[in-house]
Amino acid sequence: MPRYALLIEYDGAPYSGWQRQPDVPSVQAVIEAALARIAPEGGIVTGAGRTDAGVHAMGQVAHIDLARAWDGFKLKEALNAHIGRKPVAILDAAEADAAFHARFSATERRYIYRIRNRRAPLTFEAGQMWHVRRALDVERMRAGAAHLIGHHDFTTFRSTICQAKSPVKTLDRLDITRIGDEIVLEIVARSFLHNQVRSFVGSLERVGAGTWEPEQIKRALEARDRKACGPVAPACGLYLSAVRYPSDPFSAR
Amino acid sequence: MPRYALLIEYDGAPYSGWQRQPDVPSVQAVIEAALARIAPEGGIVTGAGRTDAGVHAMGQVAHIDLARAWDGFKLKEALNAHIGRKPVAILDAAEADAAFHARFSATERRYIYRIRNRRAPLTFEAGQMWHVRRALDVERMRAGAAHLIGHHDFTTFRSTICQAKSPVKTLDRLDITRIGDEIVLEIVARSFLHNQVRSFVGSLERVGAGTWEPEQIKRALEARDRKACGPVAPACGLYLSAVRYPSDPFSAR
Repeated sequence: MPRYALLIEYDGAPYSGWQRQPDVPSVQAVIEAALARIAPEGGIVTGAGRTDAGVHAMGQVAHIDLARAWDGFKLKEALNAHIGRKPVAILDAAEADAAFHARFSATERRYIYRIRNRRAPLTFEAGQMWHVRRALDVERMRAGAAHLIGHHDFTTFRSTICQAKSPVKTLDRLDITRIGDEIVLEIVARSFLHNQVRSFVGSLERVGAGTWEPEQIKRALEARDRKACGPVAPACGLYLSAVRYPSDPFSAR
Repeated sequence: MPRYALLIEYDGAPYSGWQRQPDVPSVQAVIEAALARIAPEGGIVTGAGRTDAGVHAMGQVAHIDLARAWDGFKLKEALNAHIGRKPVAILDAAEADAAFHARFSATERRYIYRIRNRRAPLTFEAGQMWHVRRALDVERMRAGAAHLIGHHDFTTFRSTICQAKSPVKTLDRLDITRIGDEIVLEIVARSFLHNQVRSFVGSLERVGAGTWEPEQIKRALEARDRKACGPVAPACGLYLSAVRYPSDPFSAR
């Protein structure tokens, strides 16, 4: 059975998350329903990252196994046609090596977190950014973020329901950029704990606002205690932006 | 009566346009309703540009006259509070000179038009960009746009219901930028004819797709005939991004 990699974008707002669950809408179920229309054997769509309820993606990756060979372009078009007007789009589809696994072959995941930092309410960006009304100082946020880079026990910054075997991860990058009143955080690691990015962002927001000193991020990390974490930032600002593999299945890009 | 300038952002999708009309929702009516709650004498909100149904704004400017002096920050906050959850936001409010007129004092208006150029449907950008599936060549579009710059009779590129006295206008800039599969057109002039930007974009899309040669823009312009225009591009991609004045009422920005 030939294996195909899918590059996927979605608006997470109407979904309970990536993962299929009984009785609630999920991104995985939307794609599996479309797949069942074109390839009855289609079955399961295996995603690289199980994004939470309300979290968006610009570059989720998944793999599927099909009974017959498909042209990648036609597969993409057919899936999009059957997804219809739901806010889920297959950006690319490409045949992948039989050993390719969207989740286990991934060597890097990138998230971006978007904040609009102003008093006025959001209009066309509502549900697509975190609206923070109090003024944030990006230099302070960067000083706080510097403590998180590297190999650490991130117990403080993972949800109590996180199922990862170990809280020890390596954070490769956490870059913070301000353009006008938009603040974008880019966070890069091989893999993440549950709620890790939103826990970072909720804590760094306090540093930006001045209610935490940048050094409190270091103390929170060293506490290895979930209670030392700031609030978890809302899902609507978070985007899974890219997943990297040793050999890019979408190299035709 | 002190005069105030308002800087306004809105999602145009739910509105029949900027201008108040009987029995349909408008941006002007939303702001006038909020104004009536805080200042019974408030009356009319005069906008710089009467954007059409579905057209968005990041930088609309309007003026209002109030019976008493207001602190700009408090005025902005009070209007936003009364606008509530509608997708209209007052970004700034500042006292302006009595001679300031949002429409007639304006010396420059800027629009941006956003295109997503890809096969896959739009997700979180639906209603905020024009989705063009066929491949567009930006170099060709730029070559076509070059014919529009300067002082011309733009009869071809204005709606038949345009009420401007003269079809002669000066187009200062029409810049086209591609970032990945996003194409952004920035269009700058002192003032515009009705549907002028969307008529430019609909014609330039044909040039980008290769169905028109760039020189056809020149021939269309010289025809001074509405029938020589390409299709009018959809409203959802258009944003009034800025209005300039000899003295910026929001100079505290």
